[in-house]
Amino acid sequence: MLPRTYEQEICSVAATLEVLGDRWTLLIARDACLGVTRFADFQARLGIARTVLSDRLTRLTEAGIFERRRYSEQPERFEYVLTERGRDIWPILNSLMTWGDRHLKGGQAPYVIHHRRCGGHIDDRRRCETCGQEVDVTDVVRLPGPGGRPAELGPDAESRQITESEQIG
Amino acid sequence: MLPRTYEQEICSVAATLEVLGDRWTLLIARDACLGVTRFADFQARLGIARTVLSDRLTRLTEAGIFERRRYSEQPERFEYVLTERGRDIWPILNSLMTWGDRHLKGGQAPYVIHHRRCGGHIDDRRRCETCGQEVDVTDVVRLPGPGGRPAELGPDAESRQITESEQIG
Repeated sequence: MLPRTYEQEICSVAATLEVLGDRWTLLIARDACLGVTRFADFQARLGIARTVLSDRLTRLTEAGIFERRRYSEQPERFEYVLTERGRDIWPILNSLMTWGDRHLKGGQAPYVIHHRRCGGHIDDRRRCETCGQEVDVTDVVRLPGPGGRPAELGPDAESRQITESEQIG
Repeated sequence: MLPRTYEQEICSVAATLEVLGDRWTLLIARDACLGVTRFADFQARLGIARTVLSDRLTRLTEAGIFERRRYSEQPERFEYVLTERGRDIWPILNSLMTWGDRHLKGGQAPYVIHHRRCGGHIDDRRRCETCGQEVDVTDVVRLPGPGGRPAELGPDAESRQITESEQIG
């Protein structure tokens, strides 16, 4: 628990970290931005303990980041859909990704973000380098990048990339 | 500790969170962006335990985010200066701040970021709204915003803001 000093209390960086400043939370938000909505899918992708996942989904729903929607009556099942407040987390994730690509992956991005409409590459200011549009998470897809799995590169990497593109938002 | 699944291992968001994904680390980086370099100053601003601060500064120096420089010989004293890799954390901090301003402070930002050269407001894509320049942390200052302390507002808030502006970078 961080001390509630005056600076901590008023600063929006500190306030945001109180809500989102936990690695699991940000990885859950990342997968939600990639279209994951169901408990079992988050669990399988993240390899996270069920109790921890359940706790984080409950907290994020209470914080207005997810809306919990029933998608099955028998058995009763719920999915977790990002709200506008939740989709607005994407710029944070994008800045974390950009930093990692540059400083931990030597500029060889494992994934790249492209504009859904025109295919252009999205820069680190969330703008399409091809058409200039300023995008949000619903406008983009994630593709394997040059630092991705070797099997994804090679002569027909491009067609495979299109097939493997993942919805974001 | 996060499990090292394949997705976690290659994703730059997860990789960055391994290095920076700790609230103290990001608050130390925030204060470093505001010009803080000395142990005692970080300690006083953050109210953090000395052992925790010492651990984080050592780890961040090993990760190439701070350069440790001696500024006094007797007694021997060191300061922690952001490297380029460290200054590049600012977009992450800026996106955390923007989210908090919008979703936790009801749009009443406690602090606002302005362009050092022309005074223009910096938007959430790190661009000056007045002159259009795309800025980095060395180009900006932080000023009290509309959601700041009531004493900072009022008829002569503007002149007080200039006095209270803080170097960033």
